[in-house]
Amino acid sequence: MTPRVPDRTLCTDLPAAEPGSTVRLQGWVHRRRELAQLTFLVVRDRTGLAQVVVRGEADVPPEETPVEVVGTATANPQAPGGIEVTEPTIRALSDDADTPPVELWRPTLNASLPTMLDHAAVTWRHPLQRAKWELAAASLKGFRTTLDAGGFTEVCSPKLVESATESGANVFTVDYFGRPAYLAQSPQFYKQVLVGVFERVYEVAPVFRAEPHDTVRHLAEYVSLDVELGFIEDHREVIACLRDVVAGMVAAVHEHAAPAVERLGLDVPVVPEEIPLLHFREALAIAGAPEDEPDLAPAHERALGEWAKAEHGSDFLVVEGYPTANRAFYSHPEPEDPHWSRSFDLIFRGVELVSGAQRLHRYDDYVRTLEERGYPYAPYASYVEAFRRGIPPHGGFAIGLERFVGRLTESPNIREVTLFPRDLHRLAP
Amino acid sequence: MTPRVPDRTLCTDLPAAEPGSTVRLQGWVHRRRELAQLTFLVVRDRTGLAQVVVRGEADVPPEETPVEVVGTATANPQAPGGIEVTEPTIRALSDDADTPPVELWRPTLNASLPTMLDHAAVTWRHPLQRAKWELAAASLKGFRTTLDAGGFTEVCSPKLVESATESGANVFTVDYFGRPAYLAQSPQFYKQVLVGVFERVYEVAPVFRAEPHDTVRHLAEYVSLDVELGFIEDHREVIACLRDVVAGMVAAVHEHAAPAVERLGLDVPVVPEEIPLLHFREALAIAGAPEDEPDLAPAHERALGEWAKAEHGSDFLVVEGYPTANRAFYSHPEPEDPHWSRSFDLIFRGVELVSGAQRLHRYDDYVRTLEERGYPYAPYASYVEAFRRGIPPHGGFAIGLERFVGRLTESPNIREVTLFPRDLHRLAP
Repeated sequence: MTPRVPDRTLCTDLPAAEPGSTVRLQGWVHRRRELAQLTFLVVRDRTGLAQVVVRGEADVPPEETPVEVVGTATANPQAPGGIEVTEPTIRALSDDADTPPVELWRPTLNASLPTMLDHAAVTWRHPLQRAKWELAAASLKGFRTTLDAGGFTEVCSPKLVESATESGANVFTVDYFGRPAYLAQSPQFYKQVLVGVFERVYEVAPVFRAEPHDTVRHLAEYVSLDVELGFIEDHREVIACLRDVVAGMVAAVHEHAAPAVERLGLDVPVVPEEIPLLHFREALAIAGAPEDEPDLAPAHERALGEWAKAEHGSDFLVVEGYPTANRAFYSHPEPEDPHWSRSFDLIFRGVELVSGAQRLHRYDDYVRTLEERGYPYAPYASYVEAFRRGIPPHGGFAIGLERFVGRLTESPNIREVTLFPRDLHRLAP
Repeated sequence: MTPRVPDRTLCTDLPAAEPGSTVRLQGWVHRRRELAQLTFLVVRDRTGLAQVVVRGEADVPPEETPVEVVGTATANPQAPGGIEVTEPTIRALSDDADTPPVELWRPTLNASLPTMLDHAAVTWRHPLQRAKWELAAASLKGFRTTLDAGGFTEVCSPKLVESATESGANVFTVDYFGRPAYLAQSPQFYKQVLVGVFERVYEVAPVFRAEPHDTVRHLAEYVSLDVELGFIEDHREVIACLRDVVAGMVAAVHEHAAPAVERLGLDVPVVPEEIPLLHFREALAIAGAPEDEPDLAPAHERALGEWAKAEHGSDFLVVEGYPTANRAFYSHPEPEDPHWSRSFDLIFRGVELVSGAQRLHRYDDYVRTLEERGYPYAPYASYVEAFRRGIPPHGGFAIGLERFVGRLTESPNIREVTLFPRDLHRLAP
């Protein structure tokens, strides 16, 4: 028995439809173009576009209205994929859509970033925009798959916390049943103590930074891909893990987001077996910075990115051994020369993508470090006392999802790759 | 060349070690038992336990200290798995651990829930406790795998929002650069508008409820598994999707968390091809509730759970058609009889696990519903106006991760399956 209603055909599958067969499309009116004798309708669904031809009188709803089209698959060498739909019955699936603030049917969107963000729910429908989050979703898959294969356990740590362990500044305060709580700036404490439970953990979750500056690379809320692993020798094992994770993310982009890569004409990076690695001192020299510089500035990172490309043909570069005094207090110093830490950053196309380190794992080292830095013990007590419970040598890192996609797509502003960015000025939509 | 340091052997792999070969274990001192002539050391790692025998003088660090043990794999029918480690060299990997607040080496933990939660970073190391989050991690994998295969896109929506769309009550307020913001009670708005972009979306993320009540099944922060799909005929398609998702989660528990299932002696439910389904009216009758009851109370859900088990041998039951007036304003009424809604709950072993519905998709329906309910338009404006942009018929659901694991393990209190629960009284650790 032939079903009365044929199964839905996705736009991407239309070229494979038997000419003469009845097909059913669902999607949005991407473009409506009325000529004297016929109307061209382009339908857009999550997979692509399809051309529908209406002869004579046509009652095609306005652009962006969701529709169902039942018609005949018809060969036409001029149609995309060689098949179009003719003799259609078009049914609107909602009321007529308002005219979009930008013309979504154009090959590229011609609108300012604020306009795009104000109308995110519509502008991100554009195939070139949607592609960015297809890359993000594929990257997440690759992140998890790689770590799952490595014996890691996914965990979910709370975002409402009692004290701000990362640093006092840049933290959002919440009214928690009449007392103050804070939004976690990272799952740092939780992932470290969970090494004691699971040895190897990861988490994908939002983190919150009350960034008072408006820059192209900071957000007040972003998605952090956090990893922590125990029983390591030193931070080099953490770097090796990071290399595999980033390689897994890139492989997943190829595997699961190939249409997005093609649509955007992306130059997907190759992750070398061994990512080029420099000590912080060497990095300063290459970047032409004074040797007493305490950190790498964005301009240095750009210079280092160019160096890695020119010298090693690599889009990635690891810098290790940042000055201990300039890293988080839980960073492990290099035992032979504690001026330098067992920390590292991964620079991807000239921008810091990842920060990581071996961490302190002994209670006494925490106490001494807090003292040396002149930090009060009390706010850190519950964090630090966890290290009296037997935590092995461990380390980890955090990848900013938006930064990863931003560098992948070479987007100048991180807001271009954030569905609904949050910053000093923006809290909606 | 034989490496000087053999690769690490995980406890679970020790029984496969060649007797006489050198093995290297890493883990925690699970149990230290000193007899006259020898000391038994049980090492615990993320995979299990291994027995180490030390003859004569033994310098074994206290329980919960992380150690590395290098020794000889030796057959001993009395050892777990038939292989133990003898002639060991034991190296502490951190300072001696403090005595744990509970004896982790006992087969089950003998401690009150508050004690366990206060010392979560230690108590969750117990193999029976750790197992719960192995179930959670496997469930998340099954959730995502099923939806990935169905053409869904994973999205990340913001948790800092401008207004509380779910309901004014039970929302946490954040100081957002000097103005108020709120913590998202659900990604409801975002997942609905993102149907306009991706057709089918899912998100795994924390949600926040300022629950003023202390119950065994509510938390102030929990992990919500959100799904929304467009181009549906009605809520039955959403229920069919939910069935596949839950079946995928259960399958993943078998596939990825078999050791946890075994350790806990779990009775893993079977998800029927068609989950038994009742209309709300029938459900009331079966639960023995008055027919004008507006909702199902926990006692009704328990009775219905028993009914589903007795009548259908099913741990799952769907109740559809809750009274429209009693569901969220965005629920789609049954067109033939708008007193009832196209909403549903999934009851798992007598507890509501999932709420879902077909949603309103037409702007005019939203405006009318807000009016009918006497809700002001302004706070909902940005939400409702998105429906002028062409959103197809759609629906979705949300699964509480902790509730799922709680029912799977038949835990009386949801805090038993939450790593670091947050409630009226608890904000740490």
